[in-house]
Amino acid sequence: MTQVRETLSFRPGEVILYPGVPGPRDRVYQVLKGLVRLEAVDLEGNALTLRLVRPGGFFGEEALSGLERGYFAEAVTEVELLPLPKEPDPETLKALTAHLAQALAEGYRRIERLATQRLKNRMAAALLELMDTPLAKEEDGKIVLRATHDELAAAVGSVRETVTKVIGELAREGYIRSGYGKIALLDLKGLKELSQHKGEGR
Amino acid sequence: MTQVRETLSFRPGEVILYPGVPGPRDRVYQVLKGLVRLEAVDLEGNALTLRLVRPGGFFGEEALSGLERGYFAEAVTEVELLPLPKEPDPETLKALTAHLAQALAEGYRRIERLATQRLKNRMAAALLELMDTPLAKEEDGKIVLRATHDELAAAVGSVRETVTKVIGELAREGYIRSGYGKIALLDLKGLKELSQHKGEGR
Repeated sequence: MTQVRETLSFRPGEVILYPGVPGPRDRVYQVLKGLVRLEAVDLEGNALTLRLVRPGGFFGEEALSGLERGYFAEAVTEVELLPLPKEPDPETLKALTAHLAQALAEGYRRIERLATQRLKNRMAAALLELMDTPLAKEEDGKIVLRATHDELAAAVGSVRETVTKVIGELAREGYIRSGYGKIALLDLKGLKELSQHKGEGR
Repeated sequence: MTQVRETLSFRPGEVILYPGVPGPRDRVYQVLKGLVRLEAVDLEGNALTLRLVRPGGFFGEEALSGLERGYFAEAVTEVELLPLPKEPDPETLKALTAHLAQALAEGYRRIERLATQRLKNRMAAALLELMDTPLAKEEDGKIVLRATHDELAAAVGSVRETVTKVIGELAREGYIRSGYGKIALLDLKGLKELSQHKGEGR
């Protein structure tokens, strides 16, 4: 962790925040560069991704509410953060409020998916969500995601063994091509249809 | 809908907000009295409760973010609301931010439950959550919830038929007593243990 003027830098894989009750020195952070993943980890070590925070977004909002933090914040890529002052100015508060409103809307979509969709449909949604992050690159005209089966399991709320089966199914059906820690998205339209399908999840 | 000075009143069952893109006249609302339920409804008419807003809490935050509203807001009891001004003062913005941070933390707990717990454990958590609302009353020393099986299905992300089975199971095991639209909580300690149990949901 290097402090350069007022920003903080983290390397890929570094933990930025741990679960716990926020102390007086805790701050809300704005992401200036890179991608931050908020995730819950259960007693068996299974991770569950709660939110991906992109540049412009915020996390650590429990410093304002005083509630216990239930997640780890981890740098997925090189990350640069701006800690907000204890009393943010009204403009910053408005931006933070809009970010939280959006995070809440995304959280509610996750809840709907978990309650109503099957894993295969949720996986299609999770792959499309990752397109919009620094983990996606274009290679030979195709979008390629850098993601392990563990990371995908955390994204959809499942475990690796089950995810490996679903990824195999999506690959056999021509939606994706799966390699070592990489997934090429071959059929974006098909994935979008799958992600919108209300399955028999209930 | 009656307008008394600057507050709005709604009767039980009235819809306050419909899904859609917020317009220029849309506001964020603070609940002064009563209980508001935010819920998504799918094409088959299955409801899914996203958030219960108690007195002091807010909803309609998409008026600030401009994002499409994905939920209905419904008055569960008699409700009195205060519409916030277009440009809320810093104190109100801070209260709103803290509320959204708390709603987000609750949403993340829902996501964790949906991903890792069985319906029976989620039902215990949903019953305990309702204790903290105007739907709970004390009768003969027991806490009694006013809730139909449809409402409980919406709270846990399931359907009525399945919920009826689980409620029957909880009743047979002595955790609750179930009557017409009423649930008496007989074993709070047991329900709490059930709600914290990480099942084989994955």
